[in-house]
Amino acid sequence: MKISARNVLKGTVKEISVGAINTEVTIEIAPGIEIVSIITKSSAERLDLTEGKEAYVAIKSSDVLVGVD
Amino acid sequence: MKISARNVLKGTVKEISVGAINTEVTIEIAPGIEIVSIITKSSAERLDLTEGKEAYVAIKSSDVLVGVD
Amino acid sequence: MKISARNVLKGTVKEISVGAINTEVTIEIAPGIEIVSIITKSSAERLDLTEGKEAYVAIKSSDVLVGVD
Amino acid sequence: MKISARNVLKGTVKEISVGAINTEVTIEIAPGIEIVSIITKSSAERLDLTEGKEAYVAIKSSDVLVGVD
Amino acid sequence: MKISARNVLKGTVKEISVGAINTEVTIEIAPGIEIVSIITKSSAERLDLTEGKEAYVAIKSSDVLVGVD
Amino acid sequence: MKISARNVLKGTVKEISVGAINTEVTIEIAPGIEIVSIITKSSAERLDLTEGKEAYVAIKSSDVLVGVD
Repeated sequence: MKISARNVLKGTVKEISVGAINTEVTIEIAPGIEIVSIITKSSAERLDLTEGKEAYVAIKSSDVLVGVD
Repeated sequence: MKISARNVLKGTVKEISVGAINTEVTIEIAPGIEIVSIITKSSAERLDLTEGKEAYVAIKSSDVLVGVD
Repeated sequence: MKISARNVLKGTVKEISVGAINTEVTIEIAPGIEIVSIITKSSAERLDLTEGKEAYVAIKSSDVLVGVD
Repeated sequence: MKISARNVLKGTVKEISVGAINTEVTIEIAPGIEIVSIITKSSAERLDLTEGKEAYVAIKSSDVLVGVD
Repeated sequence: MKISARNVLKGTVKEISVGAINTEVTIEIAPGIEIVSIITKSSAERLDLTEGKEAYVAIKSSDVLVGVD
Repeated sequence: MKISARNVLKGTVKEISVGAINTEVTIEIAPGIEIVSIITKSSAERLDLTEGKEAYVAIKSSDVLVGVD
């Protein structure tokens, strides 16, 4: 499925931390550049996520804040 | 200000496209890796964004979807 | 791509309304049940959306509010 | 209260799963069509949600992703 | 309708700015404290918003970032 | 860091409730006006949040719903 999220970036699952309802997934999208996602525990199981697996992060452009010093 | 968003990544503004109410900002966070943000036109003006300027993208972990092939 | 959004529902594009930066897409997911999405104009073009085309709506469970009378 | 969310759909609570801070609520909006919401545990208690109760899902159009095969 | 958003605050519409697809609404929730919302143009019309009218802002707790100096 | 969120309001941390993965933070932004945020446990630790500490709430205008009676 191709989706409307403007930011779809390929990477590798570095770390998975499971909670009561949510699961925290860390994905490396470039050397030293990691993005952390929180998804539901059942979604993580449905996607069969494991450390080292290839995965995408998908982020809507309206969910990206911009900051400056 | 330090913020709670888990994903705060430093980059450079590559492109700015202004609309009626919103403005689309493309930020390069690593060689060849760009993230697109849509913010309000007035926010873009308030942050004085220009192409080539250093900027951060900030993304809450709960706003990051994960995908697999 | 399979994604972590808990709510992925198949439907048909009923209506598309294009704006300066955003595009409004109405998708029928069951007889008489429509869901309206706002995506960026370029995303709508990238997905080659046209009225009558089969499409999915994808919604994270944390983006769904619940209400009662 | 009438709210600005474009998508307000009436349904029935099918399932409730309570976590430490969040609660997962499944609502059927049409025969066989369910939407899953994650809200805070205290919100679920405040709304006095029980299985079989009539409830609405409310979703902003900017929170709806579109996908195509 | 009572909704699950944890933050429902009553105020007065101070300013309305209409765009192609979106409308920007500024609501004063306490003396000198304003919150700006962007909703779709059609939602603003549906709610019949006018300056001086009583209105609520509703914000999910998962959409609130925290910052410190 | 200055960020693009339109709504950045200064206040005081009134209450902190820690969960398995998430932490609920209540911030008073004006006498009797509180905003509740849910952030990840690790973000709350990173920001070194304690009751009585000065803190900001930051909310994107596209995440603010409007309601009327």
